[in-house]
Order: sequence, then structure tokens, then C-alpha cells
Amino acid sequence: MRYTRVSAGGRPVWGRVREEEIELLSGSPLRGDPTVIGTVPVATAQWLPVVVPPVFYAVGMNYPRHIAHAGVETPARPEVGYRANNALTGHLRPIVRPAGVEGRFEAEPELVAVIGRTLKHASPAEARDAVFGWTIGNDVSARTWQHQDRSFWRSKNSDTFKPMGPWIETDVDALAQTTTLRVNGEVRASFATGDMVFDPYDHIVELTKYVTLHPGDVLWMGAESACRLEPGDTVDIEISGIGVLSNPVQSEGNPS
Amino acid sequence: MRYTRVSAGGRPVWGRVREEEIELLSGSPLRGDPTVIGTVPVATAQWLPVVVPPVFYAVGMNYPRHIAHAGVETPARPEVGYRANNALTGHLRPIVRPAGVEGRFEAEPELVAVIGRTLKHASPAEARDAVFGWTIGNDVSARTWQHQDRSFWRSKNSDTFKPMGPWIETDVDALAQTTTLRVNGEVRASFATGDMVFDPYDHIVELTKYVTLHPGDVLWMGAESACRLEPGDTVDIEISGIGVLSNPVQSEGNPS
Repeated sequence: MRYTRVSAGGRPVWGRVREEEIELLSGSPLRGDPTVIGTVPVATAQWLPVVVPPVFYAVGMNYPRHIAHAGVETPARPEVGYRANNALTGHLRPIVRPAGVEGRFEAEPELVAVIGRTLKHASPAEARDAVFGWTIGNDVSARTWQHQDRSFWRSKNSDTFKPMGPWIETDVDALAQTTTLRVNGEVRASFATGDMVFDPYDHIVELTKYVTLHPGDVLWMGAESACRLEPGDTVDIEISGIGVLSNPVQSEGNPS
Repeated sequence: MRYTRVSAGGRPVWGRVREEEIELLSGSPLRGDPTVIGTVPVATAQWLPVVVPPVFYAVGMNYPRHIAHAGVETPARPEVGYRANNALTGHLRPIVRPAGVEGRFEAEPELVAVIGRTLKHASPAEARDAVFGWTIGNDVSARTWQHQDRSFWRSKNSDTFKPMGPWIETDVDALAQTTTLRVNGEVRASFATGDMVFDPYDHIVELTKYVTLHPGDVLWMGAESACRLEPGDTVDIEISGIGVLSNPVQSEGNPS
């Protein structure tokens, strides 16, 4: 099943994606079994971030080739950082490069696990059962700020820097897929989605030693590689078996 | 006015604190003008974190004496990090020290600004108008993990590490107050709440160059000093003109 959120009548509404239409739902599939209350065509849908997470977790260095390229040590255990909900945006919505950005402005293609249960001190089996489904994230980053600032606050969390979508796929072996990053239709990176140092379940087991996870929490799993973006580009991230997250890039104050 | 959230009938409900009772409200005062739907006595209230923020911002080094003590450079401009909602807990609820904590386990008393408006590119005057009110936060920290881990995830965001309350005070000159930290009734720290490198309005102006703030977002303003906690202790943070946030300390698996 593919679940998402769209804007309908000016309000966020959960939906279930069929071939050419989205069934609008009475509530969140994370909190029960909602009923169908209407439909909108896929072609004209106004896609929202698939969920607004209670906590937005993000894994940093998690792909061996990324770690080798960065020249850092391979993490000895799963750890996480955080991203911020203000930065979320939906499929087809613009990524806006702020006025002050200089230097490399980049996309990072990431698999995202969406948590479906409340859990603490999870076993590996409980960790598997706790993932409701999978979506795609673009960890847009302004590198000069990333190196200059004391935290990743504006380098990775300026408004629109975290596209997430287009939907949550509940029926896929996410770690057996391929992630492909394209800019203006040209492939810039392609890697095995599951080639991770620690997979989502390893992270959930370690995290829940200290932290309670809740339905709707998201865990972004890191990227093997990145590529530059310029205003006017369109960036697509495809994860086979899940879908394609596509976003145009604009300059602040200069929508194009 | 003093607004808070309590558990009533097993559900979170907004409230307005009077002398000896809390008026239960029909909705959030951040989103309109709710009506009174009941009352509970202050004496038996089950206090919740005063708000569940869309984004949980936290300032690090922001008091000159803290900066001098840490031997770091004074920040040249306002910056923020993040904390996580799983860690929030309410007034009088236990701070639970996880099983694996070794070394210093500490409280940090912080002023918290609660945002009341949606704003971007705020002027200093707009930044002032955007603060709905003020509350108190305890930035509980496990120092060994803080120094050992690549992020602050478990050192500052394990469950119960972020008490916030007891209420949001809307009518106070927060920067003219005194912050006092007590353990088992004994004063461990006392400092001028407003003796900051950059005040909340400086932060809001800088943040909103990149980030949209939303009603309910919180901005924890840092602390001048910290003190050690042990299971069995009770830690009180008082900010004059606002109130007292009080929490007992327990060991995981050993409530006392």
C-alpha cells in the first residue's frame, strides 16, 4: 500500500495512492484503519511531506564508500542526529536556495524508515515489526554553512531543505533496492540502498535503549553520495520498489 | 496569564492556572481563544510538558561565565541546535537516569521562549511580538556520553532528560529575572536570567533569515551553570516571575 498526505480544500489530508487517483482518508493509517472520504487525481495532487514526525532522526555516515570518501572512521555503533520539521517539503515542491548561500549546494538521496509503533528496548524482531513503511528523503545541504557553523541548523534545516515523499510504501524489501539520483534527467549517482554499515533495525535496537520511538517518527538512513544543484535544476531521487521524489530548485526571491 | 497542559481523563488538555485550580480549556491558546470546559485542583494536577513543539530549538553557549568556564570562544552570532520531543517530561515527573550512565549526570537551568506566531525574516519588533510567553527547562545531560558520542542524541535526549514547565507565563519581563537552581532545597546556582550573549529576540531575527518559526516552537536559551544530580535527589529550577519546575531523580529500573 502507498500512503501519503496531500492538501485538499486547504487542509492536510491523508491519502492512499491508487493507479491514477488518491483516495482521501478519514485519518492517519498510523493510528487506526481510516475510511475513504473522497478522491483526487494523482496528476493534480498537491503533495505534502508524507508525515510530520514527532522526532526527525537522521543517520550521518552510514555507507562505506561515503565514509572512505570523507576519510573518517567507520562508526563503531549506530548513532543519530536530528533534522527539523520546518525544513520538510513535499514531492514536486521547490527546493529554495537561500539568498546567502555560497559554494556547494547539494542533494543527498536517502532511504527513510517511517515508524508505526510505540517502542522502547526493542529486540531485532520488534524493530522489524515497528517499521510501518518506507519513503524517500533528500538531505539538501549548503556545504559552506555546514563547515562554518557550530551545528547543522541552517546548512541542513533551512526551509525546503528536506523534501520527503512521494508516499510511504508498506510492501517492499527496502534494503534490496537501488537508489538513483538524477539531475535534469541525467544520472549522477546510483548505489545499493542496503549497503549500510548499520541498517534501520540496528539503529532502532540501539536507539530504543535510551529513547522511546513513536508512530510517525522518521529515521533517515544516510546517503552514499551527493551531487551539486543549481537554480533551474530538477532533482529526482528514485528508490526502486518505492518511487521517485522529484523537486525543482529555485533561488530565494527568484522563483523560476 | 499562566497556560499549561495537564492529563485529564487520560488525555492531554490545555489549562489556565488560577490560584488553586486549573481551568481546563477547549483548545490551545496558541491557536485561538479557547473556552473553559472544567477545572482540576492545582494540588492534584498531572502536569505535562507545556507544549509539544513542532521544532525544539536549543541555544548552546550563551552565558559569558559559562563560556569563560568552558574555555571556548564567545559566539560571534546567534546559532541553535536541536533537542527531541521524546525527552520531554512534565513538572513533578521523574527524571530517570538510564542504566548505562557513568560519570557526571547534571541539570542545567534554562529560560524557554514559547513562540506564538508564524514568522520569517522577522524584524526585532516582530521578534518581540512573536513570543507568546516563557517557561522553564532543565537540560539534563549525561557528560560521558556527551563527550563520547558523535551527537548529543542520548547524552541530552534520552527519555525524561528534558523537563519543561510548570506553565507558560505570558506577563513577565523574563530577561529581568533571576534563575536559581536547587537540589534537595539547597541552592547550587543563581544567576541573572538575562545575562546572555544573544537574547531570544537576537536569535529569532537570525533564525528567521533561514527558518520559518511556528506557534508552539520552543527556544531554550542556555544556562550559566550546571550541577550534579543523583538518584533520590529533587531538583528545582526557579525563575522569578515565572515559577518553579521541580522533578525527582530516579535510577532506571529502580523507582524510589
